[in-house]
Amino acid sequence: MPLTGQSFIGSQRGALGGAPIQALNPATGQRLDPVYSSVSSAEVDRAVQLAAKAFPTYSATSGKAKGAFLRRIADGLDGIQPQLAERAHLETALPMPRLLGEVSRTTGQLRLFAAVVEEGSWVEARIDPALPERKPLARPGLRSMLRPLGPVAVFGASNFPLAFSAAGGDTASALAAGCPVIVKAHSAHPGTSELVATVIQQAVAAAGLPEGVFSLLFGSGVETGAALVRHPLVQAVTFTGSLGAGRTLMDMAAARPRPIPCFTEMSSGNPVFILPGALRAGSEALAQGLFSSFTLGAGQFCTKPGIVLLTERPETARFLEKLCELVAQAQPFTLLTPGIARDYVRASSHRATQATLAAQAPAAGSAPACPANAQLFSTTLDEFLRLPALSEEIFGPDTLLVRCQTPGEFLRAAEALDGHLTATLLGSEEDLAAHWELIALLEQKAGRLIFNGFPTGVEVSHAMVHGGPYPATADSRFTSVGTRSIYRFARPVCFQGFPDALVPVELQAANPLGILRLIDGVPSREPLPE
Amino acid sequence: MPLTGQSFIGSQRGALGGAPIQALNPATGQRLDPVYSSVSSAEVDRAVQLAAKAFPTYSATSGKAKGAFLRRIADGLDGIQPQLAERAHLETALPMPRLLGEVSRTTGQLRLFAAVVEEGSWVEARIDPALPERKPLARPGLRSMLRPLGPVAVFGASNFPLAFSAAGGDTASALAAGCPVIVKAHSAHPGTSELVATVIQQAVAAAGLPEGVFSLLFGSGVETGAALVRHPLVQAVTFTGSLGAGRTLMDMAAARPRPIPCFTEMSSGNPVFILPGALRAGSEALAQGLFSSFTLGAGQFCTKPGIVLLTERPETARFLEKLCELVAQAQPFTLLTPGIARDYVRASSHRATQATLAAQAPAAGSAPACPANAQLFSTTLDEFLRLPALSEEIFGPDTLLVRCQTPGEFLRAAEALDGHLTATLLGSEEDLAAHWELIALLEQKAGRLIFNGFPTGVEVSHAMVHGGPYPATADSRFTSVGTRSIYRFARPVCFQGFPDALVPVELQAANPLGILRLIDGVPSREPLPE
Repeated sequence: MPLTGQSFIGSQRGALGGAPIQALNPATGQRLDPVYSSVSSAEVDRAVQLAAKAFPTYSATSGKAKGAFLRRIADGLDGIQPQLAERAHLETALPMPRLLGEVSRTTGQLRLFAAVVEEGSWVEARIDPALPERKPLARPGLRSMLRPLGPVAVFGASNFPLAFSAAGGDTASALAAGCPVIVKAHSAHPGTSELVATVIQQAVAAAGLPEGVFSLLFGSGVETGAALVRHPLVQAVTFTGSLGAGRTLMDMAAARPRPIPCFTEMSSGNPVFILPGALRAGSEALAQGLFSSFTLGAGQFCTKPGIVLLTERPETARFLEKLCELVAQAQPFTLLTPGIARDYVRASSHRATQATLAAQAPAAGSAPACPANAQLFSTTLDEFLRLPALSEEIFGPDTLLVRCQTPGEFLRAAEALDGHLTATLLGSEEDLAAHWELIALLEQKAGRLIFNGFPTGVEVSHAMVHGGPYPATADSRFTSVGTRSIYRFARPVCFQGFPDALVPVELQAANPLGILRLIDGVPSREPLPE
Repeated sequence: MPLTGQSFIGSQRGALGGAPIQALNPATGQRLDPVYSSVSSAEVDRAVQLAAKAFPTYSATSGKAKGAFLRRIADGLDGIQPQLAERAHLETALPMPRLLGEVSRTTGQLRLFAAVVEEGSWVEARIDPALPERKPLARPGLRSMLRPLGPVAVFGASNFPLAFSAAGGDTASALAAGCPVIVKAHSAHPGTSELVATVIQQAVAAAGLPEGVFSLLFGSGVETGAALVRHPLVQAVTFTGSLGAGRTLMDMAAARPRPIPCFTEMSSGNPVFILPGALRAGSEALAQGLFSSFTLGAGQFCTKPGIVLLTERPETARFLEKLCELVAQAQPFTLLTPGIARDYVRASSHRATQATLAAQAPAAGSAPACPANAQLFSTTLDEFLRLPALSEEIFGPDTLLVRCQTPGEFLRAAEALDGHLTATLLGSEEDLAAHWELIALLEQKAGRLIFNGFPTGVEVSHAMVHGGPYPATADSRFTSVGTRSIYRFARPVCFQGFPDALVPVELQAANPLGILRLIDGVPSREPLPE
């Protein structure tokens, strides 16, 4: 599959000659061919217009047909798994096993959403049958269900070139909901994005769907991204990235003449509370687990544990000794882009002025273009509470230890926390039971509470919540991972007094799909008397 | 129950002496005692602080206990139904039968939410059991459910002094979700609000709940309202009112350091499409039905049909003749406030410069202080498309006929429509089937599609959707009426790897509440092996 450097505008390819975008191998600094052409504003408009034109057809496409389409994309990606992982490896320097796994995660995700829409109950059909004899007034028949929002603009993320990118969770869930998707490809992995988009474009054609169901645009966030968010026909936005960029998009979406939902996943310190039992159970293993988690993917995970709270206990010294040893001996990491590498150095230098540098890996030699060395900072609770910058996420292989005097101080720390994707408690079950107040508080601060695990590693499943209060995300009522994420892209529509034949099949009396519905508030898969 | 003029700050009453607010009898112009004192900013802060303090306890209160609390409020309101309706009648000039009915609607609504939380399945519990043997990685046990957002600020609405006010749908659904509520009482019916708040304050005490679960504040929208929306501890806002005020609140909520959801229900023309069969079936009855709908509650319903699209047919003349006759003979109406009455006159005068005044009721004599006469305007489709102001809602007893040449022109009209709460189709089933393209288009423009009914009269039930795309509401993904409205106030929280005894009862293996849950994606009420 040769790469061309052109955007995907429905079934067409974009023009060449726009502002150039070229990926770089973060390990070597070498520029990677081809050069990508940024789209023109006319091309952005055309992609959105095509999406809007495709919407009536695609939104009325059956769950079975949408499922087949998603499976076709998954099959296509599986078919080029090695090529995809290799290109992604060149563009991100992430290790091949991780990237091969990320292809599987991505296709598994597509198939999970396929299963959800094939089964069909996700639309939350509700029927309140007519009560013509009710006094003082008859009740008309009411039937409602979730219907898709319309064209969705998806911003690819730098840190998951597959699972949060062109065919990632946002695209999969929006397509599953019945929304056409326009992806703004991340400029750090355009080749990976082109490979994926080629598969999707072919799947759209093979499924006989309108071309506007999928477009993928190369361009800058400032121009192409803003044009998408401001386009009157775009109905929702998804984004995973920095707090600054995410908030800019949120503000832009809120300031539109017609504001639209903007799902940004931004910044999370993912606090970890080390309760006494965790240290007693094995402080070396604990140090190893924590180190592995905050350096996984070179610390470029949304769920990296960046704040670790612990108390002084007999075992603390051994834990710290081991952790410092692991950090000091860590091999150099390669970050995703020169910009991220620069930011890591800058943020680390600033942190060193506010906290103690407890351990540091040797700096990289001459090899990688985007180097980073693991770092461990340490501070006191008082300092942590006094200096807001210590709560800010640093994107890269570092973490901050916050030394508390007593477990009671954990409550003070938790009260001061902003919103996070996760909050973790490590310890014995007795510890956990004793810290019920802390749990109740953390529930208000995070979308996922973890006991005796590490926050990195996000299951794609039904019960997963990958979200959390601001600034972790724009809107804590939604998740961007797992099947609940489809609900970002749908709205309820009610049909009152309609003849049975003219409502969507999900709402018809016979319930031909056999989905679970709420009949007068009671869940049932039974047909209704017409 | 004597009225005091003081706000409700948790279990206390507010100070007297703030800026005065006094209700007025819209029928007579008489000022109504007592004078109400606006709260101070310290009182606003205290109410919100109390709500935040109450949140951990109230959010952990069982569905059964929340249900008993809501039923207690309903019983209390039923106990003072005549007194409530009488005071509301003085403050709004709405007819007594309507207000007596509105008390019942309000208490029915509270009991409906009680039933929802007593049953408990609304929390959408999801469990993905641990798979310790899974390769390559074990899956931790994941359990998630909806948990309440936190303190909610509710703005009372002018047009439903009970059902959309202190104990209205917003309060009922937020309390049901587990959120403390701070109501900003509407200044047009402070006495009604005080009576209702007295009942709620007593119910909070009788239920043994923390006092901060409910407060009600008298004050201006600009000061008290803004202070609530900007308060860092407020987690969501609900509002029903004008587009201008609603958008201001939306912008304020979006501009906070931590943006919060702001549910505003604002402006809707509720277009009605008269298909040929409707005229054939009886043009006089149709005229009567339409007239009754747009003048119901003096035209002060969110769902008033303000835009009526019809084609030239043999029966059209008779329909118009009858409609004009009804309008010309209509008795004068009394609007809710002098401001609304002024706005009605101003908006009608402006409309008369853009559309033809087809019929008009005689102006009121000297009696009411807030008079309005029914009006019928008429225009062509081309004019309607040319002049955006013709799409704007006029709050009061008027409607606008939009004359189309052919049913095909309905599509052009529908394409140009903004978001609305409802869209109505009147006609035969054959008409409806022939207009499938129109239905598909209207689905994108409204939250509720009505066939052969009128949009006024909103059922409080499970399948109801009272929402719609902007500017009808801030967020088309939610409804403000019906049991779906509880989802405005909740967010999913996931517990990973937690011991069974330490997760909320809804997520425990034994499923002691017997609620419907999603186990590995499959709905079930069965217990799980622990």
